[in-house]
Amino acid sequence: MEFTAEQHLDDGVLERRFTLGDIPGILWTPASAPAPLLLLGHPGGLHRMYPRLAGRARHAAAEGFAAATIELPGSGDRPASAVAEQARADLRRALAAGEPVSDDIVDRLILPLVEDATPEWRALLDALLPLPEIAGRVGFAGGVISLGVRLAVVEPRISAALLFAGSFVPRTIIEQARQVTIPLHVLLQWDDQGNDRQMALDLFDAFGSTEKTLHANMGGHTGVPRFEGDAGNRFFARHLSATAT
Amino acid sequence: MEFTAEQHLDDGVLERRFTLGDIPGILWTPASAPAPLLLLGHPGGLHRMYPRLAGRARHAAAEGFAAATIELPGSGDRPASAVAEQARADLRRALAAGEPVSDDIVDRLILPLVEDATPEWRALLDALLPLPEIAGRVGFAGGVISLGVRLAVVEPRISAALLFAGSFVPRTIIEQARQVTIPLHVLLQWDDQGNDRQMALDLFDAFGSTEKTLHANMGGHTGVPRFEGDAGNRFFARHLSATAT
Repeated sequence: MEFTAEQHLDDGVLERRFTLGDIPGILWTPASAPAPLLLLGHPGGLHRMYPRLAGRARHAAAEGFAAATIELPGSGDRPASAVAEQARADLRRALAAGEPVSDDIVDRLILPLVEDATPEWRALLDALLPLPEIAGRVGFAGGVISLGVRLAVVEPRISAALLFAGSFVPRTIIEQARQVTIPLHVLLQWDDQGNDRQMALDLFDAFGSTEKTLHANMGGHTGVPRFEGDAGNRFFARHLSATAT
Repeated sequence: MEFTAEQHLDDGVLERRFTLGDIPGILWTPASAPAPLLLLGHPGGLHRMYPRLAGRARHAAAEGFAAATIELPGSGDRPASAVAEQARADLRRALAAGEPVSDDIVDRLILPLVEDATPEWRALLDALLPLPEIAGRVGFAGGVISLGVRLAVVEPRISAALLFAGSFVPRTIIEQARQVTIPLHVLLQWDDQGNDRQMALDLFDAFGSTEKTLHANMGGHTGVPRFEGDAGNRFFARHLSATAT
């Protein structure tokens, strides 16, 4: 991992751009570092997502958490994936025609992405955890929810996850969800037109965790209420902070 | 309304027993009164429910809210209802036999209760709102959820409701839910064996409110996590406090 740029934000947060191999990423650390780490998931496109990601990172920093993210395979400046492009085109066509989104489209859209991204986010942990600014437990926060599920299954260093149920979920991922046992906080936008609500409820039902909470709100895909940021911080404070049991 | 007994609780909360006509009730007021009022719903049986109700009232008092409740028709020391007794027996028989609970049983169990209780809780508001200890907006918190829905439809003095989706809901109540427009916070125990989860999700979907939030947790019917008490307080602080917009 190589740091390539840094800036101090108003609230004492240090923002550093880095590359992990050829993958661009961003690390935010609070003034109170060393701090527990949140991996910030997103749908791809770091540049487009930057304002929302930086907002979430600064909100988490106010609770004493560091945050980091990397670009997804096939997004932003990374090489495009022909399979994903085709699946996205097929998805758009199905939605525009008012047709149901087939399992085949969902599988082609999500499974290769999860397959490629999982080792990258694990490598991100390898690179970040030795830093003196990072200490304690790790959480995953955001989407792509299937990536969050996969990481929760295979990565024992992730202790809790806040998952945004805002994308289609392959059936194989729903099956894997039974293996997830860490505390979960799932966000669902009830009136998210481009999402399958029943699929999200089936996924929530499938999780093996004894502590799992679903928060459903109105406001469409991008309309998660501001108060959910506070609820997310409290969830991670319960499970990642030094006093968490 | 006639006050019949009072005691000062440890945390500066004044607890007063009263009768409203021949209906027994309890009023809790915080040291910081005058305070906004929460009506505490419950499944019936004030004596049996007292520890949980007093716990919720003291938690709400810590946020600056007064709280009050009355006995339900047919419960506790009030005259039993033959219709409700028969419906409860039929419900128990259906559940024990693993049979689906019919609309007819749900209607007989809930509709007369809602019909009788609604004017009583409105009379409770008439009696409490003139008190100098009560000021500002009013919320409803708890179950029976069908009573909360009905009150939210007919009682304009209720500004926000936290509804516990822990009992069967007649279809006519789900239809009425479309008329509810106040902010709602709905609690659902995902693994509540004696409740119909799909019915609760249908009810949540039906509410006409633009601000509605569903919190689903594990732990069975009586296992609502402690952190939901804080979440409820924050919901009412947003909507009932003097600074609420």
